Amino acid sequence: MSTSNHAQDAQDRYFMMLAIEQAKQGLYTTRPNPAVGCVIVQAGVVVGQGFHPKAGQPHAEVFALKDASAHAVGATAYVTLEPCSHTGRTPPCALGLIKAGVQRVVIAGLDPNPQVAGRGVKLLEQAGIDVTVGVLTEQAEGLNRGFLKAMRTQMPYVRLKIATSLDGRTAMATGESKWITSTAAREDVQKLRALSGAIVTGSETVITDDPQLNVRSSQLGVPAGQVPAPMVVVLDRRQRLEHSLQSDYQLCRRLDTLYWRNDDLTALLKDLVSEYQCYDILVEAGASVASSFLSQQLVDELIVYQAPCLLGEKARPMVAFNPLSLSEQLRFKISCHEQLGPDLKLTLYPL
Amino acid sequence: MSTSNHAQDAQDRYFMMLAIEQAKQGLYTTRPNPAVGCVIVQAGVVVGQGFHPKAGQPHAEVFALKDASAHAVGATAYVTLEPCSHTGRTPPCALGLIKAGVQRVVIAGLDPNPQVAGRGVKLLEQAGIDVTVGVLTEQAEGLNRGFLKAMRTQMPYVRLKIATSLDGRTAMATGESKWITSTAAREDVQKLRALSGAIVTGSETVITDDPQLNVRSSQLGVPAGQVPAPMVVVLDRRQRLEHSLQSDYQLCRRLDTLYWRNDDLTALLKDLVSEYQCYDILVEAGASVASSFLSQQLVDELIVYQAPCLLGEKARPMVAFNPLSLSEQLRFKISCHEQLGPDLKLTLYPL
Ligand SMILES: [Zn+2]
Ligand SMILES: [Zn+2]
Repeated sequence: MSTSNHAQDAQDRYFMMLAIEQAKQGLYTTRPNPAVGCVIVQAGVVVGQGFHPKAGQPHAEVFALKDASAHAVGATAYVTLEPCSHTGRTPPCALGLIKAGVQRVVIAGLDPNPQVAGRGVKLLEQAGIDVTVGVLTEQAEGLNRGFLKAMRTQMPYVRLKIATSLDGRTAMATGESKWITSTAAREDVQKLRALSGAIVTGSETVITDDPQLNVRSSQLGVPAGQVPAPMVVVLDRRQRLEHSLQSDYQLCRRLDTLYWRNDDLTALLKDLVSEYQCYDILVEAGASVASSFLSQQLVDELIVYQAPCLLGEKARPMVAFNPLSLSEQLRFKISCHEQLGPDLKLTLYPL
Repeated sequence: MSTSNHAQDAQDRYFMMLAIEQAKQGLYTTRPNPAVGCVIVQAGVVVGQGFHPKAGQPHAEVFALKDASAHAVGATAYVTLEPCSHTGRTPPCALGLIKAGVQRVVIAGLDPNPQVAGRGVKLLEQAGIDVTVGVLTEQAEGLNRGFLKAMRTQMPYVRLKIATSLDGRTAMATGESKWITSTAAREDVQKLRALSGAIVTGSETVITDDPQLNVRSSQLGVPAGQVPAPMVVVLDRRQRLEHSLQSDYQLCRRLDTLYWRNDDLTALLKDLVSEYQCYDILVEAGASVASSFLSQQLVDELIVYQAPCLLGEKARPMVAFNPLSLSEQLRFKISCHEQLGPDLKLTLYPL
């Protein structure tokens, strides 16, 4: 490997990082589309940049090429996802890059969307453009976990959020649970909701807490009004929320609330992808629903907000399953631990 | 405040940091004496350094002055604890500094030991030495939590260690508990033991686990043989460990094991200070003993080793008390969170 290749690799990673920063600006607003960023570089200088802001609006490449205008000729384009090859609401971006006279395209990762899936790269290469795929792939894919998983497997990416005490309790035995975690932790939950196409909860939670489950944070970097409201799914197998009862609860007065009356959670998740284009699912529910998702291995990411307090042995447990021996325990890998105000936030992946 | 004062403050902090690094070398070996370090600085250059290695051996200042020899004349001495003023096994260090011709002495904090308590500073000042007290006090005091608390209050510094799952469980309902936390976490416990004058456990733990509770780590930076073995205290209020039974358990075969047959834990802690010079106490026991210490507010520091696993609602709880409402919960402040192998280590202070 020559020295100049090393230098080019480092340069590629640097500009892809800038493209990822662009993509992040659309993180909470592009659903169901992926968040994508693009940076155009001419002789080592950024001459254009852009990101996809919202479904129905132009793709990242369109904004970046417009920003670069004539400087795009002979330039290198860095894109966080393979440029599209199909005519959707906008003409294919691969053609846009070709027409603009770009000489090289660097792509973080291929688009598994069956409408693209390598065709974008093929179009570019057929036009004589030098294409590099696989720069900062992992970081770029981190922006679109749901979209990528759904395109690959027709199942959504499921995040399970639990707020608990140090001794793994979610509420007192009486149900008393307000303010276990801090304002900082609750603000962070708003980000998880804003990432999600649907929030899944249980009828028990609706009846006990009457939550709103809406996105109301001003900490997202975008006005909350621009974030597509996540759909709400209430698991109501025992049909506890009959029509006569529904108007008592805030969630039930929303017209887009989906009631799921059977216990096939896999079918629900498949439906959310195929019928509703919900690729990122947030489960916010009690121990029983949480445990169903966990024990059926339907959780991709577990987020625990842990308040540094002890609620005692009679308080409510965070999970409601009963492994018979240590060998049946559920194990995780810690991905991240950070302090949020007085609390701890743990992000974990099931093993 | 002049610029030269700013520069001198920064220089004082730098050399005190070096003195603290010296002190750390004695962290596991000086008990019941405090860990102390000393650095001698002549015209901005370290000319001598030393630490107290072990009770019965010379103090830090003696080693540092010997190391500096004639360079000590007109130098500044940085000491992590007030130099002693009384003749113990060694002559008073304040006199040693005076005799060596030191011009200035910088001290992290005063020694609350009634035999010193400001007299060291007074001796130095009477000899015309310029004395500065209060540089990096907090960091220096962190090395000798037990010694300092015991000298000030006649009570020891109590660390409570609990190994738990993510859902706050210490073992399966059957008692099965081996390997909940990793080798890395268990190695770290060796450091807590090596810091401690006494380890307190319960008869239940002795009967169930038959632990050794000895210091056997090679990760301490000193040969384990140089670490004074912590005394072991078994809480045995119900006298479950009668003489006939004792020889069945490893701990009970040790001649220095203390059996505490009443439930006055405050009296035990006072005794450990006054009768046994045990200033740092580590509680390693089950939920019942842990909860007694916690609910009687006898814990200074809670250390939780948290394995990223879920053991379920029937598994054994980490604490065994029952607050009646959220307002009676025990709350803590997170001081530190770090990953140890696959596990998380949390250090918390009771609020
Ligand atoms: Zn496109
Ligand atoms: Zn001394």
